Amino acid sequence: MTPKKVSVLVAGSWGTALATVLADNDMDVTLWSRSRHQVEEINSLHRNSRFSQDIQLPPNIRATDSLEEAVIGADAVILVPPSSGMREIACKLRAYMDANTLLVHATKGFEADTVLRMSEVIAEELPGYDKDNIVVLSGPSHAEEVILKSPTAVVVAAGHTEAAEAVQDLFINSYFRVYTNPDVIGVEVGGALKNVIALGAGLSDGLGFGDNAKAALLTRGLAEIGRLGLAMGASPMTFAGLAGIGDLVVTCTSKHSRNWRAGYMLAKGVPLDEVLATMGMVVEGVRTTKAARALAHKFQTELPIAEELYRVLFEGKSPKTAVEDLMGRGRTHEMEDIARTSFGKRQP
Amino acid sequence: MTPKKVSVLVAGSWGTALATVLADNDMDVTLWSRSRHQVEEINSLHRNSRFSQDIQLPPNIRATDSLEEAVIGADAVILVPPSSGMREIACKLRAYMDANTLLVHATKGFEADTVLRMSEVIAEELPGYDKDNIVVLSGPSHAEEVILKSPTAVVVAAGHTEAAEAVQDLFINSYFRVYTNPDVIGVEVGGALKNVIALGAGLSDGLGFGDNAKAALLTRGLAEIGRLGLAMGASPMTFAGLAGIGDLVVTCTSKHSRNWRAGYMLAKGVPLDEVLATMGMVVEGVRTTKAARALAHKFQTELPIAEELYRVLFEGKSPKTAVEDLMGRGRTHEMEDIARTSFGKRQP
Repeated sequence: MTPKKVSVLVAGSWGTALATVLADNDMDVTLWSRSRHQVEEINSLHRNSRFSQDIQLPPNIRATDSLEEAVIGADAVILVPPSSGMREIACKLRAYMDANTLLVHATKGFEADTVLRMSEVIAEELPGYDKDNIVVLSGPSHAEEVILKSPTAVVVAAGHTEAAEAVQDLFINSYFRVYTNPDVIGVEVGGALKNVIALGAGLSDGLGFGDNAKAALLTRGLAEIGRLGLAMGASPMTFAGLAGIGDLVVTCTSKHSRNWRAGYMLAKGVPLDEVLATMGMVVEGVRTTKAARALAHKFQTELPIAEELYRVLFEGKSPKTAVEDLMGRGRTHEMEDIARTSFGKRQP
Repeated sequence: MTPKKVSVLVAGSWGTALATVLADNDMDVTLWSRSRHQVEEINSLHRNSRFSQDIQLPPNIRATDSLEEAVIGADAVILVPPSSGMREIACKLRAYMDANTLLVHATKGFEADTVLRMSEVIAEELPGYDKDNIVVLSGPSHAEEVILKSPTAVVVAAGHTEAAEAVQDLFINSYFRVYTNPDVIGVEVGGALKNVIALGAGLSDGLGFGDNAKAALLTRGLAEIGRLGLAMGASPMTFAGLAGIGDLVVTCTSKHSRNWRAGYMLAKGVPLDEVLATMGMVVEGVRTTKAARALAHKFQTELPIAEELYRVLFEGKSPKTAVEDLMGRGRTHEMEDIARTSFGKRQP
């Protein structure tokens, strides 16, 4: 049997990690990058130094800077650009993409101007592709651990179960467990919004508040994600799963989390532009905070954590006052918060 | 107005921390201890060195070794013994306890032989006391942080809302936020079972698995807690709150967690009796693992994490095989796990 041909666009940290999973599953993997230098480094040294100096990539990962070469003839295309780049890359795919090729994205965020989910952006740019075949992959999965084959469990969701199952077959192996879930909206909303809560958790830790405070914030954060998700049409059960609480926990408590680190630095008084420059990578939570505020308005839900973070990030509010305000001095009955969220409501 | 008289039994770490919250709220606090030495240290040096050498206790905390002195005339009695000591202490209270005195417990676990919840044990021993006035206090609250006045949010639950609200009034202040919840069963089950999951998280970390694996385990753990809770009559929403996901997160990810540390040491090959001896404090999760297995049988629910831990703790199963088995190689559809739990079902 000829090995499957799978292409991953682009060669960021998560793209590179997913490429190694596919390569471990004996596929022919093409990693697309705009950078000629990066392409040459991957092909000659089997290394992606923008991600890690130490990791040796498998020989069955090849890089290219030609989108045409990457996409034409591929059995599956995996999209992992930053959320801000999704529309452009999906638009460019139109010329090469076959309706029978599997299409997966693993990008956590909303489009800034339209506040559309990533699968909605892709569907707009690929009108000839059945939107229910677009698969989203999400869950608690730091790239740094996946590339070391540390046990990881993720979820794949699509309108058509067959598409999700085909993607499950591509990725699943002994260290990378893949579960299917029919709820595309919930999986996308959970993956995007947890970055906002992680910024808040970083603020709390940076201010020297303890684990008790962070756990309280995370509990309110899950309620907040569930509330927006439900308003957007998600299934409540998704937020009790890997793309909900699972991803939220790992992003708020792991040293690998960029969003947590950004919040931590902000709490220490580093200005936002300097934080972003220092990170050297995209901090999706900053964009998602803006998007979440717009979504709260659009879907008429309250997102107090996103609202406070917006004030810290863009209106100069002191992190300390913001976190104190988030401790929820007003409420006294726990169910006030949770009752308005997804939990406790039956799945539609 | 004369200050309220509140007694805390016993002077362990959580009892001492709760006593300082009450003392900060200007109450006359009596801390009961069996140890004459500890009583003298607290009264003369304002220190509880079994808890911490560094912490200076407020002057309005006084210690006694007389249960009669502690309980008679108290406006509220707070019970915080280890789960194994609850029945004895509740039994001794019978002679002194007034039906109008507020009665609170903050012990996380089940009674070993009967697998009863703590409020059930108390009710059996105090037949003259209205059981719906027994209040449970739980949530993500490491004693080490509470005593430093680090922001903390907890939940209090009782059959009678008025009792929960009266306890809320006792404890609430600017750093200790107290929310009410009507679901005594859910709050007790969440608080007890999270210690089992924390042992599992410690095993995972001790084996060198990463944050991705721990997040997956924690997600399954929440489903497991919800499943047993629902079978026992809890409200599903409680597990999305502070006594559920909140406490689970803090116990599985904080360096203060004894249960996590015990799991970590077990994974490193330290035998159970040596782990328990080293800790010098009660590791509730070890007892609760036994109780959880009995409860799974009694309520006919599957608790795979508790089951695997039982094998590691008491039947010599290798931690590595247990954690690998817990990665859930069998399942492929995420909802298989979550659908059988509390989430997504309407509150009764």
